[in-house]
Amino acid sequence: MLESNLSGDLFSSEHNFRAFESDRLYDVIIIGGGPAGFTAAVYCMRKGLSTGLIAQSIGGQMADTAGIENYLGFRYIDGLDLVDKFRDQVLQFGIAFTSGTRVKAIFDGEIKSIQLEDDQMFSAKTLIVASGKEGRKLGVPGEVTLIGHGVSYCPICDAPFFAGKRVAVIGGGNSAAEAVIDLAKLASHVTVIQNLPHLTADKILLDKLKVFKDVSYLYGHEVKMILGTDRVTGAIVKDKATGGEHELELDGIFVQIGLDPHSGFAKGVLEMNELGEIVVDCYCRTSRAGIFAAGDVTSVPFKQIIIACGEGAKAALSATDYILKKFEV
Amino acid sequence: MLESNLSGDLFSSEHNFRAFESDRLYDVIIIGGGPAGFTAAVYCMRKGLSTGLIAQSIGGQMADTAGIENYLGFRYIDGLDLVDKFRDQVLQFGIAFTSGTRVKAIFDGEIKSIQLEDDQMFSAKTLIVASGKEGRKLGVPGEVTLIGHGVSYCPICDAPFFAGKRVAVIGGGNSAAEAVIDLAKLASHVTVIQNLPHLTADKILLDKLKVFKDVSYLYGHEVKMILGTDRVTGAIVKDKATGGEHELELDGIFVQIGLDPHSGFAKGVLEMNELGEIVVDCYCRTSRAGIFAAGDVTSVPFKQIIIACGEGAKAALSATDYILKKFEV
Repeated sequence: MLESNLSGDLFSSEHNFRAFESDRLYDVIIIGGGPAGFTAAVYCMRKGLSTGLIAQSIGGQMADTAGIENYLGFRYIDGLDLVDKFRDQVLQFGIAFTSGTRVKAIFDGEIKSIQLEDDQMFSAKTLIVASGKEGRKLGVPGEVTLIGHGVSYCPICDAPFFAGKRVAVIGGGNSAAEAVIDLAKLASHVTVIQNLPHLTADKILLDKLKVFKDVSYLYGHEVKMILGTDRVTGAIVKDKATGGEHELELDGIFVQIGLDPHSGFAKGVLEMNELGEIVVDCYCRTSRAGIFAAGDVTSVPFKQIIIACGEGAKAALSATDYILKKFEV
Repeated sequence: MLESNLSGDLFSSEHNFRAFESDRLYDVIIIGGGPAGFTAAVYCMRKGLSTGLIAQSIGGQMADTAGIENYLGFRYIDGLDLVDKFRDQVLQFGIAFTSGTRVKAIFDGEIKSIQLEDDQMFSAKTLIVASGKEGRKLGVPGEVTLIGHGVSYCPICDAPFFAGKRVAVIGGGNSAAEAVIDLAKLASHVTVIQNLPHLTADKILLDKLKVFKDVSYLYGHEVKMILGTDRVTGAIVKDKATGGEHELELDGIFVQIGLDPHSGFAKGVLEMNELGEIVVDCYCRTSRAGIFAAGDVTSVPFKQIIIACGEGAKAALSATDYILKKFEV
């Protein structure tokens, strides 16, 4: 759905990409079409490496992001517009490219391999894992069945559907605050449900929240159940201090409680931390020689577009060095 | 000189910066006006920190860079145009800002201090050192006296002065290759003098060099002396294998043999490596708590604009965390 929202044409005449070839040994295959993967791709192609890019979705979380003000070079840019620019920059090269497919497994060895969900296999001298994160689930009854029917993890995608309606935002960090700012302009009322006694978003965002009148805050509360059959009609919330529960009438629920790394396909191959993030050093090296990782899927300390870009460049340059030393090209 | 070349107006009405106040305790003072310093500034201001930025020159090496094709978001942009965008993005905030002045020393302690070359002192809870690098000198007779009279470290600044003339480029890496590409379009002849038996630039650049006819290569040679009184007239070069020396007639010499970190003001305070780079961990922490460093002045593995930006963001977020924990704001 996100891809169809992109303003550019994926198959524009300016784009110059190729199908993957299963009998070819690539220098590097990059997994992920977010900021880290796209930057790694630009660096690998400019280094003259034969490069493949497998993007489950184009843009990653960047495509779910409202206005971006902290990517240097743009005082303000829409997430999808920045995705377009990144994608066009990558697809100008003759890169092997596929999107809309999931990686099932990776295999280490002298030569690395990737297995897609349709069991296609591709081989490369090096891998760069830049598969990002996705929105964490609440894990309460009613949540999964009502996704797309009032439950959303992507305010920028879905906020317009809730004009004049009652919505809740679950969470209290930056993404929750940004969701409130987007929704408060449209919805009849926004209830912020935060399990901590305060919000943890940046001051600049908290200041912006102050202007909105039709926003109420339930601190120290958690969602126990999402109500509705065909569509969301409300939620049961619990006061953590008293244990008391009550029902809220709602048309929509935006869950903004954090992100889980897309690292399942690398389990048993790469070392991960307790969050499921792939552990990397300052060179974006993983626990396996020749496999590099970059961006939000890794243990890099902060998750930001510009940081993911920098890490993607590092991973590409580390992969280049590895190939030069190991394969004596 | 570089500043006067910037296309934007430093004191544009859209700019909103303040003078430094010597009796104020800033949350953070950033040293450096390149990609790392600018990105750190945007992140600190958006975090609501009281922030100062001291830029010896605006843009750092970015201002000396010809076309940039590997900064994501721009397929191609002139170095100075990207500097303008970065600077405008920073100066929209009410940041304390000064440029054109050099930092003489920094002092550690519960509160950190900075001494400028005119002995003004400013104080902050944290420092971010992002002072970059500058072009390395050959260290041969005639070099320093002829800077600005035929000896240059900045092809993008000075190439236009050598139209129809004979020039040499010293070095064989990416910056040397980029210099040759710029100069070969203008100069009557370019001689590349490289001490190694081959160039070390990226393949994509080496491929571009092939189209130029009026370029010759002296591999395994080094410059022993630059000749000329008022202006460069030539150079003495030595064949490293045979020891034989000969004279080249030249009008200009572009030295592109690497970069030295601007870290002298931090000597004795911060741990440095054998290259004089400030040693940082993956959080951009230096050897002193509360002093962070980012970009080309540090031990970060690769020196690239987009990597410096990512590191600047990391340093800002690490400084924010430090202040929250240490000062309980």
